[in-house]
Amino acid sequence: MTRAITEADTSTYLEIQHFYSRQMSYLDSGDVTRWAETFTEDGVFAANAHPEPQRGRAVIERKSREMADSLAAQGIQRRHWLGMLHVDDAGDGTYLAHTYALILATPAGGQAEVRLSCTCDDVLVKTGGRWLVRHRQVYRDDLPK
Amino acid sequence: MTRAITEADTSTYLEIQHFYSRQMSYLDSGDVTRWAETFTEDGVFAANAHPEPQRGRAVIERKSREMADSLAAQGIQRRHWLGMLHVDDAGDGTYLAHTYALILATPAGGQAEVRLSCTCDDVLVKTGGRWLVRHRQVYRDDLPK
Amino acid sequence: MTRAITEADTSTYLEIQHFYSRQMSYLDSGDVTRWAETFTEDGVFAANAHPEPQRGRAVIERKSREMADSLAAQGIQRRHWLGMLHVDDAGDGTYLAHTYALILATPAGGQAEVRLSCTCDDVLVKTGGRWLVRHRQVYRDDLPK
Repeated sequence: MTRAITEADTSTYLEIQHFYSRQMSYLDSGDVTRWAETFTEDGVFAANAHPEPQRGRAVIERKSREMADSLAAQGIQRRHWLGMLHVDDAGDGTYLAHTYALILATPAGGQAEVRLSCTCDDVLVKTGGRWLVRHRQVYRDDLPK
Repeated sequence: MTRAITEADTSTYLEIQHFYSRQMSYLDSGDVTRWAETFTEDGVFAANAHPEPQRGRAVIERKSREMADSLAAQGIQRRHWLGMLHVDDAGDGTYLAHTYALILATPAGGQAEVRLSCTCDDVLVKTGGRWLVRHRQVYRDDLPK
Repeated sequence: MTRAITEADTSTYLEIQHFYSRQMSYLDSGDVTRWAETFTEDGVFAANAHPEPQRGRAVIERKSREMADSLAAQGIQRRHWLGMLHVDDAGDGTYLAHTYALILATPAGGQAEVRLSCTCDDVLVKTGGRWLVRHRQVYRDDLPK
């Protein structure tokens, strides 16, 4: 049964924060190989903005590279902020991490602006001391859930 | 005398972060009953935008329901981000938690935007292992303090 | 050699979060003396928006006072959010703390808005139980790095 993590799990909570900060810095800096490696080999990235989920590191890396190349060509720097984290222990070795996600975009020489407000629901596993995303579901607030 | 919490209080700091993430997810998802239950029975929610404070869970729940219903009718999803937390130990069993609050709004099919920037000063108590807000004071940055 | 901090360093990670929250509240409330004191005596504040770095507490305080006075005269409340923190141990007694920085501005009676999206790379030291910034490098996302 899923349960809210307790005081004793503060290090888990903190490790997940730290993991997310590194993970999103890979994406935003265009290091899509390391970004893809933050998912399990068979990790899934689903979003209500995508017609179908991205399945597996290879697909996640390819799709992210297309996006990174497109943003670079437009001279746009994106920043993904994950915050308002709360974590539940799924009781089967995985953790359910829930965050708000805010995506900002700044064009070269231009004005920073909020692009999207989302929520992000992750199934996380810890393997060999490293946290990995097994399943990510992003919901953009502007689109039907 | 109020004092900044120390290293030894890292779990307190973290528990408060976690508490806030859950608390605001209740509000933003329209679960105003659980939102109200994050205040003490006689909890007070004051804001420089309100003519008078909301006093007690019943009033907090009723006011929040009115707001939630209004936002739902307009198809607007709000997100409350609390961040930049710092905590002082009031020395009387309560903790003074200070955050910045950012409120975003996304209309269905529309563009996410920043609605308000605020600060939030809470008096928190821990009762039966649960954190609760005894007194919240929100200051919108656009209004006189 | 620089290395990512580990689980055992969760209190370090948390102390740095807490430090940043207090530090930025000093700046945003116009308490520029305490703001300057969060840097080492010879601390450096560099930014790709500045023609040259601010060197030493006295200069940092003076420059911050000019900015605080200008904002106050315009009736603008700024809020600096630091988030998405990740920390590396430099192995020489210093820590390398990397954050995203979001700057919001609210004019009196007006609309809050995002002003700038940045990254912030700090060299931090802990002296006498207090964290201090020895070197800060801010990169605005709209300007060449």
